[in-house]
Amino acid sequence: MRIARVIGSIVSTVKADALTGAKLLVVAPLDETHAVEPYVAVDTVGAGRGEVVLVATGGAARMVERHTAHAPVDATIVAIVDRLETDGWVNYVKD
Amino acid sequence: MRIARVIGSIVSTVKADALTGAKLLVVAPLDETHAVEPYVAVDTVGAGRGEVVLVATGGAARMVERHTAHAPVDATIVAIVDRLETDGWVNYVKD
Amino acid sequence: MRIARVIGSIVSTVKADALTGAKLLVVAPLDETHAVEPYVAVDTVGAGRGEVVLVATGGAARMVERHTAHAPVDATIVAIVDRLETDGWVNYVKD
Amino acid sequence: MRIARVIGSIVSTVKADALTGAKLLVVAPLDETHAVEPYVAVDTVGAGRGEVVLVATGGAARMVERHTAHAPVDATIVAIVDRLETDGWVNYVKD
Amino acid sequence: MRIARVIGSIVSTVKADALTGAKLLVVAPLDETHAVEPYVAVDTVGAGRGEVVLVATGGAARMVERHTAHAPVDATIVAIVDRLETDGWVNYVKD
Repeated sequence: MRIARVIGSIVSTVKADALTGAKLLVVAPLDETHAVEPYVAVDTVGAGRGEVVLVATGGAARMVERHTAHAPVDATIVAIVDRLETDGWVNYVKD
Repeated sequence: MRIARVIGSIVSTVKADALTGAKLLVVAPLDETHAVEPYVAVDTVGAGRGEVVLVATGGAARMVERHTAHAPVDATIVAIVDRLETDGWVNYVKD
Repeated sequence: MRIARVIGSIVSTVKADALTGAKLLVVAPLDETHAVEPYVAVDTVGAGRGEVVLVATGGAARMVERHTAHAPVDATIVAIVDRLETDGWVNYVKD
Repeated sequence: MRIARVIGSIVSTVKADALTGAKLLVVAPLDETHAVEPYVAVDTVGAGRGEVVLVATGGAARMVERHTAHAPVDATIVAIVDRLETDGWVNYVKD
Repeated sequence: MRIARVIGSIVSTVKADALTGAKLLVVAPLDETHAVEPYVAVDTVGAGRGEVVLVATGGAARMVERHTAHAPVDATIVAIVDRLETDGWVNYVKD
């Protein structure tokens, strides 16, 4: 799963029927030194602006039944990160 | 889903049967600083030139029944963006 | 679908049974400024050297029944481009 | 499968139900010269910090029945590497 | 399918059951100027060190029944290249 930060939101009125009611958030890689552009993920866990999250991509994004099964969704927020630790350092702790 | 802008169109007469009647648009990342090349997506929402859209990729691109199921399609425009806001700034508002 | 140009061909005698008889072409991105390496796609539309084509990738590559279903194929040429137009300019017209 | 090193861990209390009990590890490419950001994989083989592992991605990540089938998982650690040898050199041997 | 060269091998004793007996080879892009890191593919055609091969990725990697179906495999060697020709030049001929 990708590690990302919620940086914004999208409003769309003309869209595929299966996306009606979906909460669409803009997320970006936590590590900005890598060349991955921001993208849009469906939120299924109540993530808020600025929070660090895990994003399931591809077919995995359609494995959360209520929100995404059979919908044209390729990225879904599936976890809110409380604490991220790498190489012995705590990189992030949720407020 | 990827955030992209509709920048052009494709005409093709020799193609897979399942693509007959599909509207093929050329889209490019909104953020041009990232190294993603333009690509072609099937339009299912009536998107027009210059508009910002969301593109579902991979298997998600075949989840819009009428247009894309069982077709050799790996990118589908599934939403027209009215408003995109990131980091407290409004980056884009549809005319 | 990716926009690519047919730049070469592959000969292979030892290969998966399901690839027997498949026409394997080498394709490369039309826009050479992007860092995507050439790759091999199964041709299903009679594409020729130098032509610009659309390539379906991932599961979409196995949606052309006769040639690719149940075969270990992740890239299939599904259209020959007659005309490509972006940002109001005609970038390519087939001879 | 991707070659990666286990570099950290994630704690998350709010997450998709299917991820309950999953051990989430942060992994990064072994070769740091390539522009791939760290990501999170579900561990199914008891991998430890600093070990080199193989990560199955995409649909392959959901092929380990007990841990990942039907879960929103797109990356799974499926092997611990004992020895990695390339171009006649031993690049890595597990302690 | 990706064009790659077999550059090494992996030994792993602790791994997913479905990978038991699989021959795991390390492959790298033929064209070293592109930023793709080496990765591991299951060999199904008897490929040897130094040979140029075609690698099926994603779901395509699980389409070779005996070796890969239902296994956590996202890259499979499906062809040994005898001859690769691009832009009118012969780039590679197998010894």
